[in-house]
Amino acid sequence: MEREELFKKISVENDKKMVLLVLDGLGGLPLNGRTELETARTPNLDLLAAESELGLSHPIAPGITPGSGPAHLSLFGYDPLQHEIGRGILEALGVGVEVSARSVAVRGNFATLENGLVSDRRAGRIATEKNREIIAYLSGKIKKIEDVEVRLYSGEEHRFVLVLTGDGLDDRLTDADPEATGKPLLYATAKSEPAAKTARIVNLFIDRLTSELAGRPPANTCLLRGFAKYPVIPSMAERFKLRAAAIAVYPMYRGLAQLVGMDILETGRTIGDQVATLKKHYAEHDFFFLHVKKTDSYGEDGDFAHKVGTIEEFDHWLPEVLELTPDVLVVTGDHSTPARMHGHSWHPNPLLLKSPYQRYLPSGGGALDAIACGPPDGQGCGKAGAVPARAKFSEGACARGILGRMYAMDVLPLMMANALKFKKYGA
Amino acid sequence: MEREELFKKISVENDKKMVLLVLDGLGGLPLNGRTELETARTPNLDLLAAESELGLSHPIAPGITPGSGPAHLSLFGYDPLQHEIGRGILEALGVGVEVSARSVAVRGNFATLENGLVSDRRAGRIATEKNREIIAYLSGKIKKIEDVEVRLYSGEEHRFVLVLTGDGLDDRLTDADPEATGKPLLYATAKSEPAAKTARIVNLFIDRLTSELAGRPPANTCLLRGFAKYPVIPSMAERFKLRAAAIAVYPMYRGLAQLVGMDILETGRTIGDQVATLKKHYAEHDFFFLHVKKTDSYGEDGDFAHKVGTIEEFDHWLPEVLELTPDVLVVTGDHSTPARMHGHSWHPNPLLLKSPYQRYLPSGGGALDAIACGPPDGQGCGKAGAVPARAKFSEGACARGILGRMYAMDVLPLMMANALKFKKYGA
Repeated sequence: MEREELFKKISVENDKKMVLLVLDGLGGLPLNGRTELETARTPNLDLLAAESELGLSHPIAPGITPGSGPAHLSLFGYDPLQHEIGRGILEALGVGVEVSARSVAVRGNFATLENGLVSDRRAGRIATEKNREIIAYLSGKIKKIEDVEVRLYSGEEHRFVLVLTGDGLDDRLTDADPEATGKPLLYATAKSEPAAKTARIVNLFIDRLTSELAGRPPANTCLLRGFAKYPVIPSMAERFKLRAAAIAVYPMYRGLAQLVGMDILETGRTIGDQVATLKKHYAEHDFFFLHVKKTDSYGEDGDFAHKVGTIEEFDHWLPEVLELTPDVLVVTGDHSTPARMHGHSWHPNPLLLKSPYQRYLPSGGGALDAIACGPPDGQGCGKAGAVPARAKFSEGACARGILGRMYAMDVLPLMMANALKFKKYGA
Repeated sequence: MEREELFKKISVENDKKMVLLVLDGLGGLPLNGRTELETARTPNLDLLAAESELGLSHPIAPGITPGSGPAHLSLFGYDPLQHEIGRGILEALGVGVEVSARSVAVRGNFATLENGLVSDRRAGRIATEKNREIIAYLSGKIKKIEDVEVRLYSGEEHRFVLVLTGDGLDDRLTDADPEATGKPLLYATAKSEPAAKTARIVNLFIDRLTSELAGRPPANTCLLRGFAKYPVIPSMAERFKLRAAAIAVYPMYRGLAQLVGMDILETGRTIGDQVATLKKHYAEHDFFFLHVKKTDSYGEDGDFAHKVGTIEEFDHWLPEVLELTPDVLVVTGDHSTPARMHGHSWHPNPLLLKSPYQRYLPSGGGALDAIACGPPDGQGCGKAGAVPARAKFSEGACARGILGRMYAMDVLPLMMANALKFKKYGA
């Protein structure tokens, strides 16, 4: 039996509540001997850690650095190598575009054409404001090609997203991008027969756009890369019998949650707003995914201090989540984004799970995780006198945690088990 | 997407250097409370361990004892259950025979035929010297059968290797071995239609050999087992974009490295010679596999003391490797060969990885692995007074190491990540 089939077979509904708190890019690397998480003052997380099971999770597999798409699929319990999310769809999700199973999305660059050759692949990185003007203009001009609906969305600077919606569309196309300057436009070609119609529509679109923008340099043509259909992924309702909801500020994460059929809850911009949303809708669902973005953004910026600050801000709001007393609570990341690396990395995610069925219960010295080593602050293990007053939620403690090292896609199944939402497999 | 396809997709070339130091059969079992590795005085390895991440790796999977073939494929980043190396090929590699994609190899026994029945399956375990004489004689007599080239190579005692090279050869044959005395010769049969030609050639060979050796007991016929074609395995260049080189003394390991497309560097017999070879060719490749055989040989002999001695000899040469300052360094085994068991075992391999991107950095007590428990010698963690002056590279420290427990086939991907030779997967 396949893993996915197994889940479908053993999942049952009950009224237990599961909350998955994701700090995007949480894991880090040490600066002056401590990671971002170890540097942050997190009294509430630390108290929670002393009552929880800790571990580390590989987003995909050891050594693999994931993008946001596969990293989140893992967290939602899906095998990220079995369900690929094409670049165009992810871009569309990123700008908050609604896409359906009948859509093909692709990311575009405005570019410059001179004497029939591409002279600038980014049209001089035009201002986002200018981009919006052009998109507004084009949206009035190009609404349909044959029977296919055309929609255009501005991104930052020279970037945009094209969404085609209609019958018989297919994403098996070559990129329409010469990938170098000094070359003529390159049209899309079908890699497979069923994509012939889509290739024709795409190429008609390129010609229409180029003729509409004729004589308006620097942005007088476009390059299109990463054609992608909306992936067909069984919903969390179908696979896990969950009534799942997402509380995320950024469009991409709302989009990823929507891919697996979560309800998207309206929320404000701050972590406090998100926690308020959780409280407001707590009765309505049995699984909540709450996504904190800024840990990742600051990591990408190489801004150690602000990443620490975001973790501390999260810690401040944590007690309000705990007051809801969810049956199963997980705090983790989707991947690591060490400020030192200015980007995503392969390092495993810190993972905390609290449940009434965890094997080690809190007690003065009884909880294995509670005596795990923290950062080298004189409170860790090995210290004379030994059992520390409290644990620390840190990569170090997680590396020694009772949950060991697991694949991120196994975390949701573990939550399901702890919420008694999985029946026995086999007799 | 399959694992292998993923690696191909995300691998990039850069100028970072990776060195994989393999002590064959390194892992052991305690005698008087300490394993071979724990008994060895290894000041250089221990200093290195204090600056590295430690863990344990399963050669294949928990509980599986591997042969050298699958154990090395794992170390090279290949799934050993996806790429089988037939016995005949491994024997051929073991005696240093060149085999090509057009070859089928098989191992042979000289045997004794009396009155049409096999009376001794090993021809009285004839001396290796005698074996060489017979092979020299036969090699002059049987050079070709139909259009197929025939080559013969002596092994130890009654063993030899037959390599057939030609067009349209196939290894889907039954063994030509009655597997008991008192039975007539058994001819090979094709298990699949395309192997019919090979079966015919093999059976003609058996008849030719038997008639050439007629009246020369004890070795007057042969039994053939384990027909195998040279496996088609994508090279490390193709899969990981690596310029890989092997520094190994024994033919089998050179052969295994060649299977995955490594360049085989000429080297001497000692560990010192091998390290000198590494230094000499350091500029020319970005991945080096250096293989130390004798830890395994002594383990197989049940010779605890000499296995300890080989580890100490390796330790002596380690600083010369460190002087090269490879970007990513791994020290590990391919499988365990506990002297106590006189053979390979399933116990996981000690694993040490050093990289600028490891999560825990060396410092006075900061390196998690440095305060990991060593063998029970009163210096381990939990002891009052505690942070030990230095770590120990040992099974005990590895069992508590930050890398946890992983599959050996994930070690190379982890090295790739640490050398920044993997791009992000997905967006």
